Amino acid sequence: MKNSSLNSEDYSRRDFVKLGAAAGLGAAFGGMILSGCSTSTRHPSATPVEFISPKIDPVRMGFVGVGGMGTAHVRNFVRIDGVEIKAVCDIVEDHAKRSQKIVSDSGQPEPEIYTLGEFDFKRMCERDDIDLVFTATPWKWHVPICVEAMNTGKHAATEVPAAVTIDECWQLVETSENTQKYCIMMENCCYGRREMMLLNMVRKGLFGELVHGECGYLHDLRGVKFADSGEGLWRREHSKTRDGNLYPTHGLGPVAQRMNINRGDLFEYLVSMSSPSKGLQEYAAANFPADHPKRKETYILGDVNVSLIKTVSGKTITLYHDCNLPRPYSRGDLIQGTKGIAHGYPDRIYIEGVSENSHQWEALDKYREQFEHPLWTEQGEAARGAGHGGMDYIEDYRLIYSLRNGEQPDMDVYDAAAWSVVSELSEISVANKSKAVEFPDFTRGLWKTREPLGIVGG
Amino acid sequence: MKNSSLNSEDYSRRDFVKLGAAAGLGAAFGGMILSGCSTSTRHPSATPVEFISPKIDPVRMGFVGVGGMGTAHVRNFVRIDGVEIKAVCDIVEDHAKRSQKIVSDSGQPEPEIYTLGEFDFKRMCERDDIDLVFTATPWKWHVPICVEAMNTGKHAATEVPAAVTIDECWQLVETSENTQKYCIMMENCCYGRREMMLLNMVRKGLFGELVHGECGYLHDLRGVKFADSGEGLWRREHSKTRDGNLYPTHGLGPVAQRMNINRGDLFEYLVSMSSPSKGLQEYAAANFPADHPKRKETYILGDVNVSLIKTVSGKTITLYHDCNLPRPYSRGDLIQGTKGIAHGYPDRIYIEGVSENSHQWEALDKYREQFEHPLWTEQGEAARGAGHGGMDYIEDYRLIYSLRNGEQPDMDVYDAAAWSVVSELSEISVANKSKAVEFPDFTRGLWKTREPLGIVGG
Repeated sequence: MKNSSLNSEDYSRRDFVKLGAAAGLGAAFGGMILSGCSTSTRHPSATPVEFISPKIDPVRMGFVGVGGMGTAHVRNFVRIDGVEIKAVCDIVEDHAKRSQKIVSDSGQPEPEIYTLGEFDFKRMCERDDIDLVFTATPWKWHVPICVEAMNTGKHAATEVPAAVTIDECWQLVETSENTQKYCIMMENCCYGRREMMLLNMVRKGLFGELVHGECGYLHDLRGVKFADSGEGLWRREHSKTRDGNLYPTHGLGPVAQRMNINRGDLFEYLVSMSSPSKGLQEYAAANFPADHPKRKETYILGDVNVSLIKTVSGKTITLYHDCNLPRPYSRGDLIQGTKGIAHGYPDRIYIEGVSENSHQWEALDKYREQFEHPLWTEQGEAARGAGHGGMDYIEDYRLIYSLRNGEQPDMDVYDAAAWSVVSELSEISVANKSKAVEFPDFTRGLWKTREPLGIVGG
Repeated sequence: MKNSSLNSEDYSRRDFVKLGAAAGLGAAFGGMILSGCSTSTRHPSATPVEFISPKIDPVRMGFVGVGGMGTAHVRNFVRIDGVEIKAVCDIVEDHAKRSQKIVSDSGQPEPEIYTLGEFDFKRMCERDDIDLVFTATPWKWHVPICVEAMNTGKHAATEVPAAVTIDECWQLVETSENTQKYCIMMENCCYGRREMMLLNMVRKGLFGELVHGECGYLHDLRGVKFADSGEGLWRREHSKTRDGNLYPTHGLGPVAQRMNINRGDLFEYLVSMSSPSKGLQEYAAANFPADHPKRKETYILGDVNVSLIKTVSGKTITLYHDCNLPRPYSRGDLIQGTKGIAHGYPDRIYIEGVSENSHQWEALDKYREQFEHPLWTEQGEAARGAGHGGMDYIEDYRLIYSLRNGEQPDMDVYDAAAWSVVSELSEISVANKSKAVEFPDFTRGLWKTREPLGIVGG
């Protein structure tokens, strides 16, 4: 089993993942493979660089990928002061033109469109009149586009997940540090009304000392995955070759902020387990004739994936990914401390000595007047009608606010990496009998001295 | 690291647990330690024995431990036809006399009491006019009393958990097989109204093929643990020396029945993770003066313990133990399949194509008329007012029913062992960085050919 070589510090991640898969359910072998913390050894000597970019006003933007989500963001940004949209890139010319018209209809000069294929974003990035490149493409394009943007002197903002692999996460961190450009993952759920109110309540100490959280992305995406347009063209593919948590950030981001991950605490390791893979198979059998190409596809993604994350301070997080079965939508969103607990779907809370009846849930709304997050008090009206209950507008507003005012973005490249890296770490754990897999410390120690987030915008 | 010896099949559990603890957070070491499935090697050659005991009518009972729960059971059994209570044993004479009076007040002859110390149950077991010994003592006495009962020719019924350690689980299995006497763990939650209705719905196929479950025991026991009477006299002790899931069966039993564990499927392995230990410490600091003895105690039990269980067929179960923090009561009780999902606290359900609105929860009560479990339809009235919403009465009724009619009890010694062994397995996993720990196959292969449970009493 050549354990010594398997443990060697310079052992490359790709090789040991391959071996890990080869080991299948061999727990001991998996154990040796993963015991070298190989996932965090890519840059043992690099030192992180913290920076704050000078004020930018107006913020000149270029978009890559204006399908469903990209277009929704364009509609938000044309309503936000201090934004000029200079260029729009998409492989589908009609999509590019649709956003081009949204911009010109808003009174701004007509943006140039880039539609000459998958790599035309490089031509867009050659422009010298863009400050921020915003990408809402299929997952595999997020990192190439963000890296190109930063290397050509632009800040980068990307839809979730920022990256699919551990190596990609390191690429974002390295490039942001080397270019002194921001790489911001647009985790809209961190701006959800419940999520922000709970962050506010956590900071005010209502829950006491936090010990545990539970979250996830539990959303029946069978229809989306099998559609002949939009995400159906690429999202289902991931279910054919990957078994783990493909989409960790919606649930994890808000919990990580409450727990000060990368700002006083750090994700230390996770274990992950997947249920059988049945949902997509049954859906295809029920919805397509026997000779349909989609009936010939094979899937390995477990219908329900559960990961347990341990932080350096000892806190625990249960994280779900559950997108292939019929079920009501949920992100879980439980936060528990020594003085109280809150849980989403339905939104409820219990605070010892504050809640009216002992050990009885109260509606979270009962606390809204006192603990509504100031950003929602201030921007809730403007956000009304925007995507996902308004959280998308507040997210976009905050991105522009931080750039115009020369402030650190609410979420930085270390958050993008720590939240997104769960995907490949969970795949490694699932492939190795739920073996504990270390998180890379993308901050390389900065987490120990960085200030807590406070409340976003507070 | 002498891996070969650590992997050897005759490596004893006690030794490797000690080493596991010594290894602390050394994942690789823990991995090698636990990779030999040592937890299941105690009886590699023994062959299991299945038996059905002849009809017993009336069922003559002796009780050991008549505190809170024991007394509640006595009050049930005096109301059940075909029961004669011959003896009552308790270290507290007043408790024994209290149950003695309950029995005589019911019109039965006055039972003899046994109050000469902790081992007086042995003298009671010498009687030749008892068919069933029922114990509701502190956990550490369950196995010694059940083993003594079976070795003296009585069937044994015990409160939960049936056993605290892996070795104790094997003792119950061995003794039951060798004596051909039942050892039944009284898991009352398997008789809960929601739990039985969901079992009924699972058997009728409403959820399709089951893939995942979630359950646990989430109950603020701080007051109970710090009381100067009842469980306060012994239960808190476990929090001083153990970190894992101390009380797994209330949540796990009903999910295991739905998944046919030991009857077509088997628990294969688990991983477990514990949050920091803060709740009992804060409670003691807030409720006892600085010089109080309880302020000098130290606790290691993580406030929230989460275990992930994998079955041989691939199903997954998330199992919680959460008893040291302020929170509303819950057993979780989620069951998810390819066609639908149900979740307790609050009780809700979604069945694709059956529920009115797509992806919207419905109240479980909406399905009660059609899917109420026949036992609750038949015994619900008699159960009214009995402990825990009536489930305790139905549990006791079923115990007597199976003995009087010469039927297999609903839950057997293999269930008692498989559900209870989670405690020590989780402690081993927590002590070894959430390492996967194998379940012993207490059935030694019988699970492959045993008939599914059907619906209890159906």
